Amino acid sequence: MVAGYFGKVLRVNLSGGKISADEHDEDFYRRYYGGSALIAYYLLREVGAGVDALSPGNRLVFAAGPVTGVPIAGAGRNSVGAKSPLNGAYGQAEVGGFWGAELRHAGWDAIVVEGKAEHPVYIWIEDDRVEIRDARHLWGKTTLEVQKLIQKELGSRAIRVAQTGPAGENQVRFACVVNDINHAAGRSGMGAVMGSKNLRAIAVRGHQKVELADEKAVNALARWLRDDLKTNRMAVGFSQNGTAGGLTAFSAMGNLPTRNFQQGHFEGAEKIGGQAINEQILVSRGGCFACPIRCKPHVGVNGRYEVDPVYGGPEYETLGSLGSSCGVDNLEAIARGNQQCGAYGMDTISTGVTIAFAMECFEKGILTEKDTGGLKLRFGDADMMLELIELVARREGIGAVLADGSARAADVIGNGAAEFAMQVKGQEVPMHEPRCKAGLGMGYAISPTGADHCHNIHDTGYVMRIGSGPRAMGILETLPSQDLSAGKVRMQLYGSLWQHALNCLVFCQFVPFASDRMTALLNGITGWNSNLWELMKLGERFITMARAFNVREGKGKADDFLPKRFLTPFESGPLEGVAIKQDELSTAVETYYGMVGWDSEGRPTRPKLEELGVSWVADA
Amino acid sequence: MVAGYFGKVLRVNLSGGKISADEHDEDFYRRYYGGSALIAYYLLREVGAGVDALSPGNRLVFAAGPVTGVPIAGAGRNSVGAKSPLNGAYGQAEVGGFWGAELRHAGWDAIVVEGKAEHPVYIWIEDDRVEIRDARHLWGKTTLEVQKLIQKELGSRAIRVAQTGPAGENQVRFACVVNDINHAAGRSGMGAVMGSKNLRAIAVRGHQKVELADEKAVNALARWLRDDLKTNRMAVGFSQNGTAGGLTAFSAMGNLPTRNFQQGHFEGAEKIGGQAINEQILVSRGGCFACPIRCKPHVGVNGRYEVDPVYGGPEYETLGSLGSSCGVDNLEAIARGNQQCGAYGMDTISTGVTIAFAMECFEKGILTEKDTGGLKLRFGDADMMLELIELVARREGIGAVLADGSARAADVIGNGAAEFAMQVKGQEVPMHEPRCKAGLGMGYAISPTGADHCHNIHDTGYVMRIGSGPRAMGILETLPSQDLSAGKVRMQLYGSLWQHALNCLVFCQFVPFASDRMTALLNGITGWNSNLWELMKLGERFITMARAFNVREGKGKADDFLPKRFLTPFESGPLEGVAIKQDELSTAVETYYGMVGWDSEGRPTRPKLEELGVSWVADA
Repeated sequence: MVAGYFGKVLRVNLSGGKISADEHDEDFYRRYYGGSALIAYYLLREVGAGVDALSPGNRLVFAAGPVTGVPIAGAGRNSVGAKSPLNGAYGQAEVGGFWGAELRHAGWDAIVVEGKAEHPVYIWIEDDRVEIRDARHLWGKTTLEVQKLIQKELGSRAIRVAQTGPAGENQVRFACVVNDINHAAGRSGMGAVMGSKNLRAIAVRGHQKVELADEKAVNALARWLRDDLKTNRMAVGFSQNGTAGGLTAFSAMGNLPTRNFQQGHFEGAEKIGGQAINEQILVSRGGCFACPIRCKPHVGVNGRYEVDPVYGGPEYETLGSLGSSCGVDNLEAIARGNQQCGAYGMDTISTGVTIAFAMECFEKGILTEKDTGGLKLRFGDADMMLELIELVARREGIGAVLADGSARAADVIGNGAAEFAMQVKGQEVPMHEPRCKAGLGMGYAISPTGADHCHNIHDTGYVMRIGSGPRAMGILETLPSQDLSAGKVRMQLYGSLWQHALNCLVFCQFVPFASDRMTALLNGITGWNSNLWELMKLGERFITMARAFNVREGKGKADDFLPKRFLTPFESGPLEGVAIKQDELSTAVETYYGMVGWDSEGRPTRPKLEELGVSWVADA
Repeated sequence: MVAGYFGKVLRVNLSGGKISADEHDEDFYRRYYGGSALIAYYLLREVGAGVDALSPGNRLVFAAGPVTGVPIAGAGRNSVGAKSPLNGAYGQAEVGGFWGAELRHAGWDAIVVEGKAEHPVYIWIEDDRVEIRDARHLWGKTTLEVQKLIQKELGSRAIRVAQTGPAGENQVRFACVVNDINHAAGRSGMGAVMGSKNLRAIAVRGHQKVELADEKAVNALARWLRDDLKTNRMAVGFSQNGTAGGLTAFSAMGNLPTRNFQQGHFEGAEKIGGQAINEQILVSRGGCFACPIRCKPHVGVNGRYEVDPVYGGPEYETLGSLGSSCGVDNLEAIARGNQQCGAYGMDTISTGVTIAFAMECFEKGILTEKDTGGLKLRFGDADMMLELIELVARREGIGAVLADGSARAADVIGNGAAEFAMQVKGQEVPMHEPRCKAGLGMGYAISPTGADHCHNIHDTGYVMRIGSGPRAMGILETLPSQDLSAGKVRMQLYGSLWQHALNCLVFCQFVPFASDRMTALLNGITGWNSNLWELMKLGERFITMARAFNVREGKGKADDFLPKRFLTPFESGPLEGVAIKQDELSTAVETYYGMVGWDSEGRPTRPKLEELGVSWVADA
C-alpha cells in the first residue's frame, strides 16, 4: 500500500449487483493520482465510443485524491465523472463537503458504478462492508428527506450521503449530485447519470485514517495554513462574504451576466450581492471537512419564499444564474430557487441559464403562450423563475423541453432559438462574461466539459493567486482582460494545468496554498519527491486524456466555439462596444492546440500521449 | 539589480575596439537565466542566417549563470557559444575551472565579443575596467606560455585566463577555448572563432561577491553538499578515479569506441583505464572553484612522452579518442597527446576521432602515402597519433585537411571516405557508443550542436542520478539500453531538459545535487520562487531556440542522423550482432519532434515558441 492511498477502488455493478475492488499499485497512483485523472482513466478504459450517457454502459465515478480526507483545509473535496448526458462528451464536476473525506476514511480512493439496478437502490459503505440496499421508499423524495431517512435507517447521523434528487430520477440532463444536503457536484449532469442507473444515493461511514508518510510534516503544513488563513486576504474575504463578495464589483466591471447575457451589469446587483445576503438573510456560515474558511452561506427566509438554512444558500454562481441572468433582483426568491435546486438536485447554473434562455425566446416571440401552457416568461419575474424550476424538475409542460438543457431545447423549439442558448458543448455558460474575461472565454471554448469556470483561470488577477504566482510558472507579463494574444493563451494554459492538477489531488481552489507548499503536502502524505513539473504534467495528462475521450466521441474543433452573443459588442454598460473577435478566438484556440501538443484539428498527437506516459490512449 | 546577477553583459567589438555593456532587467534573467539560453538569445538576435562562422559577423559569447561564482561545489563553470565553424550551426561548449567564477567576481554575467581585431589582441578585465591589449607577442605561443606571460605583464598570478591556442590561431575548426591551462570548452570549435577574431585571450580579475538574496540558505545548502560529497558514491568515485573510472567497465559492456568505432571493446582497456592512471602517472588531483570533488587528474611523465602536470591529464573522453579510437594502448603517449591538445588548444574528442578516421581511410586504401606525405597511418601507432596532432595544429601536410574536421576532410578525400567520418552535424562523436546506449544515440542525432554527450542523458542508469531521480520527472519505467521506444525518447527528452537547465544555471552535472535542492539554491541566490517546472521549461526554451537557430541556417530533419556504422551490427564483442535500426531511429526522432512541439520536419512551431515566451524567435 502506498502512503496516502488505500490502493483500492470500489466497483459496483448495479446490473446483477456484483461488488468488487480494483487494486492499484504505486505506479498507477503516481501516473493518475486521483480525482480528474483517475476518472479520465476509467472513462477512457471502460466507456466505449457512442455509449449513451444515460444507458447502463456509462460509468459513474466518484473519485477522491491523495489529499482528500487528510486533516488540512481544502482537503474535503472529491470529483464525480461520467460521460455527460448534456453532450455525450467528457463530464465531470467537483464538490466539497464531508462525503469525500468519509469515503477515504472508509478505506476507498474511489468508486466506479456501472450497469443499472432493476429498481431504485442505494449503496451503503461502512469501511470494507459494502451493500446494495433497496431505495424504492426513497424515490421521489427531496434530498433532505432522503438523507434523513437513510441516516435513520442505518442508525447514525454521522453517515454521509451523496445522492441524486428527483430531477436526477427524472433524468433532467443537468441534474447534479448532492452530498451533505448543501454541496453540489453541479456541472455536466452527473445526477442524471446516477438516476439512469436507478441509484439514488451512496451512504458512507468510515473509521480509518489516511496513512501519512510524514505525519509531522503534514501537521506542520496544516498548522501553518490554519494560521495563515486567519489573515490571508482572499481567505478572510471568503470567510466574511463567501463567493458572493465580488458580485457588485463584477457587475460594475461588466462581468455579471444579466438577462441571458444581453448585459454584463445588473441594476439590481446591490440587492443580491454579498452585503445584502449578510444583512438580510444570513443565518450562519458552513464549510467543508477540516476547513476553517467556512465560505458557505446558510440562509433562512420566512413567509412566501420560505428557506431552510440546512440547504445552505445561494453562491455567486446561483445569484447570477437565478438572479441577474433571469433579471431577478429578489434575494429571497433566489434563495428559494437555490433551495428548490438543492432539494431536487439540479445544477443552479444550467437551471438558471436555461430558464433565462426560455425567457429571451419568449420575449422575442420564439416561444409563445401556446408553447408554455399560458405562462408568460418575462425577465425579472421571480415567481415565474421559481415556477419554471418546478416544471423542469418534474419535466412538466415547457419544463420537459427545458430539462434537456438549452442546446437540446433550442433544437426542439427551432425558429432561431439556438442563437440564445448560451452554451458551449451543451453546457450552459457560468457567471463570468467572456467579453470581460477573454482568456476565460477561450477556456470555455476548449474545456473538455464545455463552458466550465472550475477548469480555467479567471485572467491575470486570478492567476496571481494560484500556484506560487505567475512568475513561478514562467509568466512574466501582465495582460489586459480583453487581450487574447498568445501570451494570454499561455497564461490560460499554464493556469489551467495547475487547476487540473488540484482537481487530481483533490484540493480546493479557494484555499490559497502556494504550489511549493502544495507539493510539500503531497510529498508529506505520500513520501514521494513530487514537484511542480510533475504536477503540471499531471494536469496536462488529464486535459489530454479528456480531450482524447471527446475526440473518440467525434468532438473536434467545431465544438470549441463561443456563442455568437459573445462576438457581438455590448450595446451599453461598462463594456459598451466590447466583443470577442472571432478571428482572435480562432487563432487563440489554434494556438492553444499547438501549445498543448494537439494537431491543428485539436486531436492529441501520438507523441504527446507517449510523452505523458499514456500511449495506450492513442491505441484506444 | 537582481540578487544573484550583476545585470551587466560586457560587449566588446574588436572591429574598432568599442567596449560597452548591455544592462538587463529581472524579467530578462528570469527568461534566459544564463549559460546556454543567454548564448542562444544573443546568437539568434545578432548572428543572421548565412554569416560565416569565422567571419567578424559571428558572435563569441562567454556566459556564466546565476550559480557561477557562488561558493558551492559545481559553481565553477561557464559556457562558450558561437555559430560553429564545424557546421555553420549552433555551437556551444561548457567548461569548468576558475575563470567563469572570476568573471562573475569582476561583476559581469557574460561577455559578447564581435568583430575582428586588426592584429592579435587580448582583453583585460579587472572589475569595471576593461581594456583591449596588444597580443602580437603572444601569437603562436602555447597556452601555458601565454597564461604565464599575461599574468606576468599584468602583475598577478591570481589573474584567470581563457584563451584560444595556436590551433585556434590557425583556425583548426575544432580548436577549443582553454581556461586555467587545463580546462577546455572543447566542442563546437569555439577556439577557431576566437582565433578568427584575432582574440588570443581574455584575462579576468574580480573583487566582488555575487549578492545572495538569502545568504544563510545558500550557505546551508553549500555545507550540506560539502558534507554529502564525502560519502556520495558518485562523488567519491569521481574523487578517486576521475572520469576515467568507468573506462574498463565501458569496454566490457561494448561502450568504448575502438579503432574508429569499428569495435566497442578494446583489448588494451586495462592499460589506459582509471586504475592504470592512478598507479602509473597520477601526480595529484585538481578541480574547479569551490568544489571538493577534484575529479581532474594531473599526471606527469618523464622521458620520451614528457608531460607537465600543469596541463592536467587525459579525461575519459580523451583516453577514448586518442586511445582506443586510435587503437593506442600506450597511456604515456595518450597523456602526451592530451598535453599537445591542451598546449595548442584543440578538442581532444574531435582530434582523436578525426585522426582515427584518417587511420581507417589509410587502412582501407582511401588515403595513401601519396596523400599523407609518406606517413603510414596505422591504428595503434602511438607516435603516428602524436605526429598527426602536431600536423593538424599547424595545418601542415595531411594535417591541413584534417584540421577542418572529419566531415569536411571526407569531402576533400572523397572515394567513400564519408562513410568513415564518425560525426553528426559535423561534430565528431564522443566516446559513448550509440549501439550500446541507444537513447544517447538518438540524442546525438537531435542535439543542436551535433554529436554531444554533455547535452544528453546516458540512458536509464544515468537518469537515475540526475535531478531528483526519474520518478520526480514522471518516468516510472526502466527500459533496456538498446530500447528506442517512445518511452526511451521521453526519458531522453526529460533528462536532457534538466541537463540544459543545468547548463543555463550554470552547474556541473558531475556534482550530484537533486533538483529540489538545486531549486532551493537558485531561489536562495536570487530570491525567486522558481521550481522544477520553470527550470524544465527553461531547458525546453533553450533547446527550442537553438533548434530555431539551426532551422534558420537551413538545417533540418536530414541533419538529424547517425553515421551508417551505428546501423551496422558489431561483428564481435560484447554487443555482437547489435545495431541501431534505421526505422526505429527515424520513428524516435519524429516522436521527439512531436513531444517537444516541433513539426514533422523538426521545425519549432509558432505556438511552441509563444508558449515558451519567445515569440520573437518565430518572427526572426
